[in-house]
Amino acid sequence: MSQFITFEGPDGSGKSTIANLVYDELLKRNIRVIKTREPGGTKIGEKIRDIILDTENKEMDMRTEALLYAASRAQHTFEKIIPALEDGVNVICERYVLSSLAYQGAARGQKIKDIKSINNFATGMKKPDVVFVFKTNRDTLERKDSKDYDRLEEESRDFHKKVRDFYNNLEKEENFYFIDANKSIEEVFRDCMKVLEEKGDL
Amino acid sequence: MSQFITFEGPDGSGKSTIANLVYDELLKRNIRVIKTREPGGTKIGEKIRDIILDTENKEMDMRTEALLYAASRAQHTFEKIIPALEDGVNVICERYVLSSLAYQGAARGQKIKDIKSINNFATGMKKPDVVFVFKTNRDTLERKDSKDYDRLEEESRDFHKKVRDFYNNLEKEENFYFIDANKSIEEVFRDCMKVLEEKGDL
Repeated sequence: MSQFITFEGPDGSGKSTIANLVYDELLKRNIRVIKTREPGGTKIGEKIRDIILDTENKEMDMRTEALLYAASRAQHTFEKIIPALEDGVNVICERYVLSSLAYQGAARGQKIKDIKSINNFATGMKKPDVVFVFKTNRDTLERKDSKDYDRLEEESRDFHKKVRDFYNNLEKEENFYFIDANKSIEEVFRDCMKVLEEKGDL
Repeated sequence: MSQFITFEGPDGSGKSTIANLVYDELLKRNIRVIKTREPGGTKIGEKIRDIILDTENKEMDMRTEALLYAASRAQHTFEKIIPALEDGVNVICERYVLSSLAYQGAARGQKIKDIKSINNFATGMKKPDVVFVFKTNRDTLERKDSKDYDRLEEESRDFHKKVRDFYNNLEKEENFYFIDANKSIEEVFRDCMKVLEEKGDL
């Protein structure tokens, strides 16, 4: 059965690097898989992404932001993710619902219950089979040049600390796999592959 | 106390014409008022509007559509409508939450409860003081040249009939004022002004 695998964690915690390594490894093993990302992942989603991340849109209300992420996610889920899974293709996705709970919920201070409810509508309750939650103690955003920051990366250190704390303090759910992202890339990659191998189903 | 006045009804039922006449009349009476429209009404809202109405976005999922309308409405409400009202300015708005219940709910066949819930989040439960509900028996879209149709106007006759039926069958709520839009422009204008005059508060 094809698996829906998401990578979640703060900006700069290595999600993208590891998602790419896992994707390459699955391809090498002749496993059918696609890799996609949020916000975006579809033509309409990319247009929504441009509005969300444009540093010029400073006046964006936090409700608007949460709804735009959910809109992009709805399109992504029903145009790309579900059709791939139904076609027997595994899906690797950088960020999904948990990112909205972290950024639009915990960090912006909106009610988690509200953000969950919007996202239940957006995804039709589709749940990932595997959620890799990257936990880190570092101020991970420092890896990137600040002139390249998007609208959310530009937020304060305090904002990003709330995101980190959200991920670090998450309670275990059935499909959550906590990953110590303070380790080396090689180790993190190995930890993720171990989860997938033990779970099987690929 | 400044009033939040919305005009609701099917495409081509004369909302825009009447809203303009009412706006001009209020200005003539030296009443402070702004006129705005949905989707759009703000810089960010106009960008969202372009995505919603672009006839190229045929693959748009109906959940995405509902969330984009709500996103545009959130920005509109918190950037423009509420600040104007707090500043003592009356607000005339073409389309608001009821349009999403009609189009994304009744016509698209999504649950009214879900569309209400998203919009409660988007508006922070802000309710108009006056909702003019235009009721008509005509296939009103015929007034417009079909080559100028946007993505929603392009929908089937059946879709637009569901919208009409939704408005025609609405149950009275405290802030709803039903308007017989089959009448002449002059009569409809007079009916709307009568409501505003009797209600006072402008």
